[in-house]
Amino acid sequence: MLPESDYQKLTAPESIALVGVTGRSGKGSNNPLEVLLNFGYRGRIYPVNRKGGIILGRQAYTSLLDVPEIPDLAVICAPRDAVPVLFGQCAAKGVRIVMITAQGFSDGDEQGRLMQEELLAVSAKNNIRVLGPNTLGIVNNFEHCCTSFIKFINYFKPIGITCQTGAFYIGAAQYCTGIGLMIDTGNTSDIAVSDVLGHLARDSRLKVINIHMEGLKNGLEFMREAQDAVTRRPVIIYKTGASPAGSAAASSHTGSLAGEDRVFDAAFQQCGLLRAADIEEIGDLNKAFCTFNGIKGKRIGIISISGGAGVMAADACIRYGLEIAALSEATFEQLNELFPAWARCSNPMDIWPPSMFHGFQYACRRILEAFMKDPQIDAVMCLIFSHLEKEDDFLDASGVIREIAAQYPDKPLVASTCGGRYQDYQLELEKENNVVFYFSLERAARALAAMYKYHHLIKKKERRPAALPEHPGQIRAAQILAGKSKGNLSQTDALSLLEAYGIPAARWEKAQNSTEAVLAAEKIGYPVTLKVISPDINHKSDVGGVRLNIGNSRQLKEAFTEMYKEINHKQPGAQIDGVLIQEYLPKGTELLLGCKKDPQFGPVLAFGAGGVFTEILNDVTLRIPPLSRDEMSVLINETKISKILAGARGGTAANLELLTDSLTCFMQLVLANPSIVEMDINPLLADADRIVALDSRVTLG
Amino acid sequence: MLPESDYQKLTAPESIALVGVTGRSGKGSNNPLEVLLNFGYRGRIYPVNRKGGIILGRQAYTSLLDVPEIPDLAVICAPRDAVPVLFGQCAAKGVRIVMITAQGFSDGDEQGRLMQEELLAVSAKNNIRVLGPNTLGIVNNFEHCCTSFIKFINYFKPIGITCQTGAFYIGAAQYCTGIGLMIDTGNTSDIAVSDVLGHLARDSRLKVINIHMEGLKNGLEFMREAQDAVTRRPVIIYKTGASPAGSAAASSHTGSLAGEDRVFDAAFQQCGLLRAADIEEIGDLNKAFCTFNGIKGKRIGIISISGGAGVMAADACIRYGLEIAALSEATFEQLNELFPAWARCSNPMDIWPPSMFHGFQYACRRILEAFMKDPQIDAVMCLIFSHLEKEDDFLDASGVIREIAAQYPDKPLVASTCGGRYQDYQLELEKENNVVFYFSLERAARALAAMYKYHHLIKKKERRPAALPEHPGQIRAAQILAGKSKGNLSQTDALSLLEAYGIPAARWEKAQNSTEAVLAAEKIGYPVTLKVISPDINHKSDVGGVRLNIGNSRQLKEAFTEMYKEINHKQPGAQIDGVLIQEYLPKGTELLLGCKKDPQFGPVLAFGAGGVFTEILNDVTLRIPPLSRDEMSVLINETKISKILAGARGGTAANLELLTDSLTCFMQLVLANPSIVEMDINPLLADADRIVALDSRVTLG
Repeated sequence: MLPESDYQKLTAPESIALVGVTGRSGKGSNNPLEVLLNFGYRGRIYPVNRKGGIILGRQAYTSLLDVPEIPDLAVICAPRDAVPVLFGQCAAKGVRIVMITAQGFSDGDEQGRLMQEELLAVSAKNNIRVLGPNTLGIVNNFEHCCTSFIKFINYFKPIGITCQTGAFYIGAAQYCTGIGLMIDTGNTSDIAVSDVLGHLARDSRLKVINIHMEGLKNGLEFMREAQDAVTRRPVIIYKTGASPAGSAAASSHTGSLAGEDRVFDAAFQQCGLLRAADIEEIGDLNKAFCTFNGIKGKRIGIISISGGAGVMAADACIRYGLEIAALSEATFEQLNELFPAWARCSNPMDIWPPSMFHGFQYACRRILEAFMKDPQIDAVMCLIFSHLEKEDDFLDASGVIREIAAQYPDKPLVASTCGGRYQDYQLELEKENNVVFYFSLERAARALAAMYKYHHLIKKKERRPAALPEHPGQIRAAQILAGKSKGNLSQTDALSLLEAYGIPAARWEKAQNSTEAVLAAEKIGYPVTLKVISPDINHKSDVGGVRLNIGNSRQLKEAFTEMYKEINHKQPGAQIDGVLIQEYLPKGTELLLGCKKDPQFGPVLAFGAGGVFTEILNDVTLRIPPLSRDEMSVLINETKISKILAGARGGTAANLELLTDSLTCFMQLVLANPSIVEMDINPLLADADRIVALDSRVTLG
Repeated sequence: MLPESDYQKLTAPESIALVGVTGRSGKGSNNPLEVLLNFGYRGRIYPVNRKGGIILGRQAYTSLLDVPEIPDLAVICAPRDAVPVLFGQCAAKGVRIVMITAQGFSDGDEQGRLMQEELLAVSAKNNIRVLGPNTLGIVNNFEHCCTSFIKFINYFKPIGITCQTGAFYIGAAQYCTGIGLMIDTGNTSDIAVSDVLGHLARDSRLKVINIHMEGLKNGLEFMREAQDAVTRRPVIIYKTGASPAGSAAASSHTGSLAGEDRVFDAAFQQCGLLRAADIEEIGDLNKAFCTFNGIKGKRIGIISISGGAGVMAADACIRYGLEIAALSEATFEQLNELFPAWARCSNPMDIWPPSMFHGFQYACRRILEAFMKDPQIDAVMCLIFSHLEKEDDFLDASGVIREIAAQYPDKPLVASTCGGRYQDYQLELEKENNVVFYFSLERAARALAAMYKYHHLIKKKERRPAALPEHPGQIRAAQILAGKSKGNLSQTDALSLLEAYGIPAARWEKAQNSTEAVLAAEKIGYPVTLKVISPDINHKSDVGGVRLNIGNSRQLKEAFTEMYKEINHKQPGAQIDGVLIQEYLPKGTELLLGCKKDPQFGPVLAFGAGGVFTEILNDVTLRIPPLSRDEMSVLINETKISKILAGARGGTAANLELLTDSLTCFMQLVLANPSIVEMDINPLLADADRIVALDSRVTLG
């Protein structure tokens, strides 16, 4: 997080130097001075242009060094090749915050990438913080400050935004529905979302935070900031570059590396960020969070001017995990008298039959009031008609809806319509900022579900634990790993590593020939499994290198001979370092426990269905460690295989306590040993009595 | 399908009687005569009101019987209780098509349900076809005809629509973007979507068909009509009542039964219907199909005014299964010169750098022309800014886009924007009906993907086969099923049924005691499996009623004794009819092959992962039979388990020919024996040599 004073200089500077500002002005001139003046900025402005002259009525300085004070913020608004010299002036002047708008740095070619690195070297030496390059900078609608060289339609909304592309900045009116305070980090060479998120979340003028993200450099720092931020404000994140093609475009754009989308998704979920699937969801959620202070639960009352639309609304609620409220006795009694004998008073409630008998406005008011008052309803969705031209519109309920919403400020009331004049209705309904209109009931339900999730799951969520204590097995583990080079650890070392950390493995012995194998098997006890040990063989079963359920010494000797023969046939010349004799365990559920080092987030845990089904079922959940024991349980329960572990279909339940122990030890192991870049225990066998690793693969980097 | 003359009378009547029309008129009067006159209807109109008098300048008849001709269409627009008498007049007059607008029939109480049944009895006797009750009837914008008593904003679009709720009818301007010809079947007591779909699909004035569906009465008839319709026009379906809560609301609304959503989904997919997830998707797809005649492939060219937005566009394309086009050499050469040295000419293409050097309008035109001309690009997505107020807007590319779209009518060009003035841009861009605007790139990609799906997958899809020939095993099967009452078939009968139809089962014998069991096992050959036979035991394994892998007679006797003991302990008093000795097969992939009789669609096939994972993995695909062998392959390949069947991870591939044989026989079995209401083969074991049923459960109804 930026120090408070730096953040103030960045977002609410008392003085700004526009370094390299153009002398042109008016339509299409892209003059940041013009934008700043139009914003009504009240601080001191210093235009700098090497030709000097008057720009928009203000005397330009020919050098930043001539400016009579050290400005809080210098905005370099010249093309790429002019930037190094101007940046040098900033350093010489002692400016603390420098913003660079030009493109063509890490978003461009190799030369640009080097130029960006050089700027960073200069800034490090001179204690400068840099925003950009390739940024439009900041918009502060509270302080009438904006550093963009592009004009744009600027709607105010109490929303804090960080983004990595100008499209999000100047598209904010469309994507976010408006701006309170916005920071575009552009290429994000220095100042990043983690530097500003905490400040935005603490800003009492803002009601919701939006993040547009293409990539990250320090995932764990981001997670720390995000986890704190969500305790203060709802944070909606829109991550682009999710597809491989998108990722390619992302790296060519801002030079930030887009990571594997599933890892990001796991991290966002762990932090309690609300991930938006598309730009519409951002705006939809913003409207809800800006309008309503909270939602008491997820029981929805549905009022509809048509039975068919009531069905659509119920579908939408269920789809997003909301519940259809059971009306309280009082509501039922108050409203039942409005209905003709043949129609039902229920939720969803069809207003049409009572309207026909009691008049539309009256029925609508009575029903709406009863629903807003009903303690068994946490939010109301209301679908009305918008099908008549204004002069014919005797069914316009927008006034009643606004009026009643104002009386019950603690219960969200969202509306949608049916008919061609929906845009007029949107304006009418949202006029007093106490009702939110959605084009569809699906979008209404999605927004209410997000509110419920934020207020009841995210805000109440346990915070991530601090670092874990060192496991006593680390001394032994360090010995095993000491001096090992990059690549795969031998299987016996991998198994020893597990044992060091107290993760039980099936009993095993190494053997060099069939005689040793028989001795080993007798020590372990039949039945046993025979596995080849070879640095050259990646998938043992594919070359016949695994023999299961061997019952006696005769079978073992046969299996030994056959195995060597088959390997020699299928992978001739493979180096064979002997065999592994392992306790054969026929029972239990096959699990996968793994870890992969991610460039952004470090070790990422993977847990789920193992064995032959691993890739095909893809029943694996990811988490960024460390995790508390409670979080481990949540992780386990997110997988489908957890139902089998719980003892589905008459099976015995696995010992989840022991499983959680193994997960914890595994987590400690990978966190304490950064040389492990990939590690799989697959299968990890779980049954009622034991958790046993049968196979493990460790890759060092 | 309705006979042509009936369809004409329904949708383009030359004369209409409005039976029970109100004498009121003006705002809020809900007078269908007023709506009809406002529509400019050119046929003959006969108002009927028992008080007579002048309504809107026309003399009303006091009885339908006084009308001087038999009108093509009679619209009964009186409240429920007046309907039977007026319907009787229609019958006496000899009217062929009668429409009933009143609510309170099967959508209301029990009395209403009975009244609806009585109307149908009268209509059957008098050869009348009924639309409704609870319907607003039809809109025909080609013939200026509308039977609604509610006014509504009426936009013309070349779209044919059927729906089951007035919300969709009067909301069509919002949900569908307009109407060409619309039929609301209301409670769908008689005339249903299947009656009109074929006519809409054959109507050359229409470009796309929309179906809003709450439920169906004859699923197979609907499928036949739908399969034919999609060869003529794209058909978009929006099915409500998908959630249990939605279903409850649906049955209370129109009285049509909403079936299980997954079965509907399978049926829709088989027919080639495009299922819309929400109302926005309907409008989005309509716009594309109404504007573009086709799409050559799925390679998308992306032009964006921002690199960041290009990433979003690429994400959106990949998400919906589109491809990012590789630019042709010619395009690259033409456009590369526009770019500064540090920027890349690629797809997605960022227009901003070339605009800075060559002017925005010029760069935009050059790039757009090159993309539209490029034979390696099948459709273009274009993101432009809409961020400036009109007077400042030097970046308005809407004119260039429209102009170039007009020059390349065979290549879809869709646009989205970024900035607050997007609604103006939408109007501008769509002005000449050759470009479609979408609020987001996701929605643009979804619409292009639907076009690709329709033109390249659905239209080219193999049609469903006719009924299958009778299997020679049917004689034996009929013997087994003869005289059997409702409930579960015994396991031996179930296995015999499979054998009759040539579905191989593991070799089995029945035995009454341990001596018979040993004899049976010797006949089959060890190892064997022992299973209890009991009409009282549902899940054999839960009570210890299954013993696997028995190697010899001693083990068999022991297992026999132990099994009886355990069952006696766990389910005392269960009737035991002996045991099943079965060949033990340790190898193979466990599958599920099942069938469930659906109220709408009859037998529904289920295929997927079996064994203990069945419910948990939920890896099951549904289909409405009959299926061709090719369709069987598609069915198999839709499951995740198919990767294991294909021999993933070094496993041997299962024999898919034999598997398809078994599926075909199973399909013939359930189609030929309608008394089977549920049937499961689980597990069906598949390996390289054999497909073997291990267990089967058959429920008769």
